[in-house]
Amino acid sequence: MTFRATVLTLYPEMFPGPLGVSLAGRALAEGAWQLDAVQIRDFATDKHRTVDDTPAGGGAGMVLKVDVLAAAIDHARTINPDAPVLAMTPRGKPITQGRIRELAAGPGITILCGRFEGFDERIFEGRQVEEVALADIVLSGGEPAALAILDACIRLLPGVMGAPSSGIEESFESGLLEYPHYTRPVEWEGRTIPEVLRSGDHAKIAAWRKSQSEDHTRLRRPDLWERHGGVRDQPASDARRKK
Amino acid sequence: MTFRATVLTLYPEMFPGPLGVSLAGRALAEGAWQLDAVQIRDFATDKHRTVDDTPAGGGAGMVLKVDVLAAAIDHARTINPDAPVLAMTPRGKPITQGRIRELAAGPGITILCGRFEGFDERIFEGRQVEEVALADIVLSGGEPAALAILDACIRLLPGVMGAPSSGIEESFESGLLEYPHYTRPVEWEGRTIPEVLRSGDHAKIAAWRKSQSEDHTRLRRPDLWERHGGVRDQPASDARRKK
Repeated sequence: MTFRATVLTLYPEMFPGPLGVSLAGRALAEGAWQLDAVQIRDFATDKHRTVDDTPAGGGAGMVLKVDVLAAAIDHARTINPDAPVLAMTPRGKPITQGRIRELAAGPGITILCGRFEGFDERIFEGRQVEEVALADIVLSGGEPAALAILDACIRLLPGVMGAPSSGIEESFESGLLEYPHYTRPVEWEGRTIPEVLRSGDHAKIAAWRKSQSEDHTRLRRPDLWERHGGVRDQPASDARRKK
Repeated sequence: MTFRATVLTLYPEMFPGPLGVSLAGRALAEGAWQLDAVQIRDFATDKHRTVDDTPAGGGAGMVLKVDVLAAAIDHARTINPDAPVLAMTPRGKPITQGRIRELAAGPGITILCGRFEGFDERIFEGRQVEEVALADIVLSGGEPAALAILDACIRLLPGVMGAPSSGIEESFESGLLEYPHYTRPVEWEGRTIPEVLRSGDHAKIAAWRKSQSEDHTRLRRPDLWERHGGVRDQPASDARRKK
């Protein structure tokens, strides 16, 4: 079954964009996923092809019309009936790697991209749309967010990543941030690769990496650390923490 | 002064990509910002143009070489000496709208995009690189994240957005999520625009929107609500909360 991405947008020319290159681009060419970028404007009903209107109650910006959005979503559901419909909006639930994994395991996704001020709120309940936030930043539209969400899904599709194990030891997959990486040269501008990584002792290396992941998560992302349970598997290295 | 973006990447052809279209594309054409997409591979020193090597201590994937990254960053600093250098990595500090606002007010940014397993850790201290995470998801590379960060900055540049006020009442700018939007038709599939928005009473509308923002943030994003201080300006509407 091919993962099918449908993007509802006022700028279909933004797609595949970066997803036409490298890993995702190769996967697209090989048919590991499929992309339809659908012009929302095609679902406008008046002769001016109007997609937005002024906000009820006043204020700056424009609001995407619920009837036009509904027609676009209904069209997407004829393409991929079982795909969840996501709307990219800073008001949504922050995306997580867990949700990406679920989406990548499914039949695909339909992503609704806003521009202007936002979506008419009635679309979310009226068409069972999942409001998703990429990050706590405001974009000019949902398109860059859709590209990031799709990229994250595509790399998890069967056969897309070279080494399947690359997916497992990564940030968030275990609820922790990843450990630090090093490669040759052993010394660079007076900075050396940590000795343990050059020891050849695989158990010691695994323990060091685990401990690094834990320390790093605790110090930099107390929110993730708390969700993880805040219980370390490896004793903290005092030497490292004092440095 | 023109905002200057330098992207260090193995896939310069991904840029400007979506940023060549719409708001950002128009601003690029008009010179409101400037873009250099620099090929990291040009800074490799061997005849095979090697940019990565196997991870010290073993494991899957490849690590971007610190000496090559340093040469690329040094080059970027000749282009834009005062621009902060950001590396996109899930191990980094989550980006915020506050940081975007700071970046947009400066001379530009240099963004380092990784592929493969990651960056040699020594680059961060060795070249004063700010590790930044877009979201708690894993991308195939830093490029989609760089596009999102740049988009968020560009829309804040002087003259880029049509109505300057659009930037103010948005999610995160006040520490709260934005209130819901509605536009015509007044009734759609049995769902109506809330009556208050049709009242013409501007003070009541402002109070309702503030209360909606507060309720929405508290219910959907307790983390933001807590940072905001958790103090509501508007009394919660019991009717609304019970529905």
